[in-house]
Amino acid sequence: MSDSFQDALAGLAAIVGDKHVIAPGSDQESYVVDWRGRYQGRAAAVVKPGSTAEVAAVVKFCGARQLAIVPQGGNTGMCGAATPDDRPGNVVIRLDRMRAVRDVSPLADTITVEAGCILADVQNAARAADRYFPLSLGAEGSCQIGGNISTNAGGTAVLRYGPTRDLVLGLEVVLADGRVFNGLRALRKDNTGYALKQLFIGAEGTLGIVTAAVLKLFAPPRSSALALLKLQGVEQALEIMQRLRGTVGDRLGSLEIMSRSQIEAIAETVPHVTIPFELTTPWYLIVEVTDTLAGVDLDEALATVLGEAMEAGLAEDVILASNLAQAKAIWAVRHSVSEGNKRSGYVVSHDSVVPLERQAVFVTNVEARIKAAVPHANVVMHGHIGDGNIHVIALIDRARCQDPAATAALVTEINEIVDDETAAQGGAISAEHGIGITNRGRLARVTDPNDIELMRDIKRLFDPNGLMNPGKIFGAGAA
Amino acid sequence: MSDSFQDALAGLAAIVGDKHVIAPGSDQESYVVDWRGRYQGRAAAVVKPGSTAEVAAVVKFCGARQLAIVPQGGNTGMCGAATPDDRPGNVVIRLDRMRAVRDVSPLADTITVEAGCILADVQNAARAADRYFPLSLGAEGSCQIGGNISTNAGGTAVLRYGPTRDLVLGLEVVLADGRVFNGLRALRKDNTGYALKQLFIGAEGTLGIVTAAVLKLFAPPRSSALALLKLQGVEQALEIMQRLRGTVGDRLGSLEIMSRSQIEAIAETVPHVTIPFELTTPWYLIVEVTDTLAGVDLDEALATVLGEAMEAGLAEDVILASNLAQAKAIWAVRHSVSEGNKRSGYVVSHDSVVPLERQAVFVTNVEARIKAAVPHANVVMHGHIGDGNIHVIALIDRARCQDPAATAALVTEINEIVDDETAAQGGAISAEHGIGITNRGRLARVTDPNDIELMRDIKRLFDPNGLMNPGKIFGAGAA
Repeated sequence: MSDSFQDALAGLAAIVGDKHVIAPGSDQESYVVDWRGRYQGRAAAVVKPGSTAEVAAVVKFCGARQLAIVPQGGNTGMCGAATPDDRPGNVVIRLDRMRAVRDVSPLADTITVEAGCILADVQNAARAADRYFPLSLGAEGSCQIGGNISTNAGGTAVLRYGPTRDLVLGLEVVLADGRVFNGLRALRKDNTGYALKQLFIGAEGTLGIVTAAVLKLFAPPRSSALALLKLQGVEQALEIMQRLRGTVGDRLGSLEIMSRSQIEAIAETVPHVTIPFELTTPWYLIVEVTDTLAGVDLDEALATVLGEAMEAGLAEDVILASNLAQAKAIWAVRHSVSEGNKRSGYVVSHDSVVPLERQAVFVTNVEARIKAAVPHANVVMHGHIGDGNIHVIALIDRARCQDPAATAALVTEINEIVDDETAAQGGAISAEHGIGITNRGRLARVTDPNDIELMRDIKRLFDPNGLMNPGKIFGAGAA
Repeated sequence: MSDSFQDALAGLAAIVGDKHVIAPGSDQESYVVDWRGRYQGRAAAVVKPGSTAEVAAVVKFCGARQLAIVPQGGNTGMCGAATPDDRPGNVVIRLDRMRAVRDVSPLADTITVEAGCILADVQNAARAADRYFPLSLGAEGSCQIGGNISTNAGGTAVLRYGPTRDLVLGLEVVLADGRVFNGLRALRKDNTGYALKQLFIGAEGTLGIVTAAVLKLFAPPRSSALALLKLQGVEQALEIMQRLRGTVGDRLGSLEIMSRSQIEAIAETVPHVTIPFELTTPWYLIVEVTDTLAGVDLDEALATVLGEAMEAGLAEDVILASNLAQAKAIWAVRHSVSEGNKRSGYVVSHDSVVPLERQAVFVTNVEARIKAAVPHANVVMHGHIGDGNIHVIALIDRARCQDPAATAALVTEINEIVDDETAAQGGAISAEHGIGITNRGRLARVTDPNDIELMRDIKRLFDPNGLMNPGKIFGAGAA
């Protein structure tokens, strides 16, 4: 390590304390590789500031020395947005020590948290006050709320509560020059000028570092009912969705769809999950309805509308969960998709979103085109059909992925099929995972050059020296 | 009129057609004065383009000649944000001809409209498809959706559905250089880079001209119940809100509060409105609960929880509307506040928002300080207590407002009392009305200079020549 990096370590230690700076070596390993092991970077230091003032001081320190800053939450992202690149002068900033729940207000239905707070801890703090924080996703036990905000995370509750953006009332952000944007306000409405906070939500740490947030809480669901439906196709799922809207109205909580191939991949590779129903149709739909009132009989309402759907030939079978254990067993299948896919082969995953009514044709076209181009690919699908967001995943035998160049070419071929079809249906290539490293080339390929130019202008405005999470969203040399 | 303005008229007519350009004179009158008659500006032309391409061409034309552009919706704004200033070279752009409802999708719960569409027409188009567009405010019969988006309008349904920002899925915007930002996508989720569309929502036309939008629709409320409560104070209203949340949950639709003085001002000045209850307490709260299912007995649920609140001493009286006519009569009082105040005197109104639990102390402090400073002021209040947004209004005898300089000084004195108290309670000076001309000095006074600098940076980035609605939000010479 060069002298200048030794000096940097000492300087950073002076700000955050010796034991909160990790020098290059094995202790850094979990911070410079993304969780899927696809991206391996380097860092002069990993630092763990203990306060917003320390974050700002670290950012100023890095700015003065032209060290790149890589904000990292729980390192559970899907696109490598929190992994440093391979330049030696990266400084990874982790907010693990800033994990306080500062305030819960049941009256105002708000919670104020520091950015390093684990998502599950936010959920639990809300629950302890008899309130509900709806953001829920597979990594909730280790992802941090600052990372959720910076990726505008989605998950299984978007249909009813919206993505993370819709849950954020106030934000505190350390900017690239070390100034602090103090928008940490618990206000339900605010029309005092431009919506600056919105820029930082989903910006993947490229415009600043989120250090704290005021989030919305809700009345907790106190009654619920869940059913699993066996379907012939996505169009049937959409028709059932419309019937549900007409009958259970805004009690509709989740609508999660899986292809038969998706469930088979789980059944074959995830030993601790049992599929609690027979696989007899091409598609499976989880319907969950919830009510904020206790004692509402949703089972009967759900059974009625789904029974009618069956009679109308829209569903082949309906399994109503008769108790919490059954409901959990069905959700366990849905929550195992990432694990099952990872165990089944090399994962080429997609996060497209299209207008709701285009989902059936999108899925049909994409599957046919991938199978024609790559006959050995196993195409599995799962997603949030009420959001227009079906993840199309090609699983490739790992034995065929030994050559990196050939694998990269294969991935590009599949990506381009999905992206072209997404664009043809008026969609976007990322619904909820973001851009990071993985999708930056694809973003550039399918996005209106005007939009890219506007985004680069914003990036230059907030980060003129290009030190804030460089190489993410735009690719290298963006700023 | 100078030759250059004559040339401009001819050039604009060449773009939009002769009959869609209005030259200076009496035909322009309704476009160069705000509806309250407070701001009187000038314009070289008022133009009515018929398409996005024509809007872009007009903007380019103005840019090449350094003519200032003033986008104007229905001219119903509260802060003069759509009124030209008194320079002769303003061009007012009206989108009255762009009022098509392009698409309604009941499956996707979306509606695609042109920006000149009247809000009531958006509501009606949704209703015709058995869907619901929740934005609702006093001016809905004449305001345009482009203006609602540009002010991020609030209204009486924010508690349940959020402000306009939360209702916008996609936007098309003509930028200051004539480029078109094409974000007109009907996507429920989209994480492909920075959230550019968010910048234009609430920007009051200072960053571009909204020309079309994709908006969210909802299941229509099919059951409802309404009650009027007589209360001793705001703290009782907040406690009742909390009880309602625990019992009717997310069925809570509206929570509108009025002071006795507010209702008296209406009773004394608006002959066509009858107050359908006796005034016996200092505060009055309208509670409306709705359900998307038909045939739900909400009256009983509401009667129970409000009866308990009365027993607990939180309410002096509860009047449950027993039919639609009674409910309408109660809403008619709420909808007459602007008219009643305008008829009662010179209106010094405020749009503060504070954290929910600070509303009681905010209201008490503000009223006491205004009455101490201006003993002859009649302080009336109404607002959205579930949003933290109580409008504090000082009504001044018009006989005392003959001298403009003295009136301006009086307004400033009252504004500063309200703004200081708003800031002391962690609030913001505009919840829903925006900044425009009226509040730009106040914004500068109470806002963190860092925030103002960031906003000015964004303004310069999108409008380097300062031609897009100049003098709004920041005051003159902002760009």
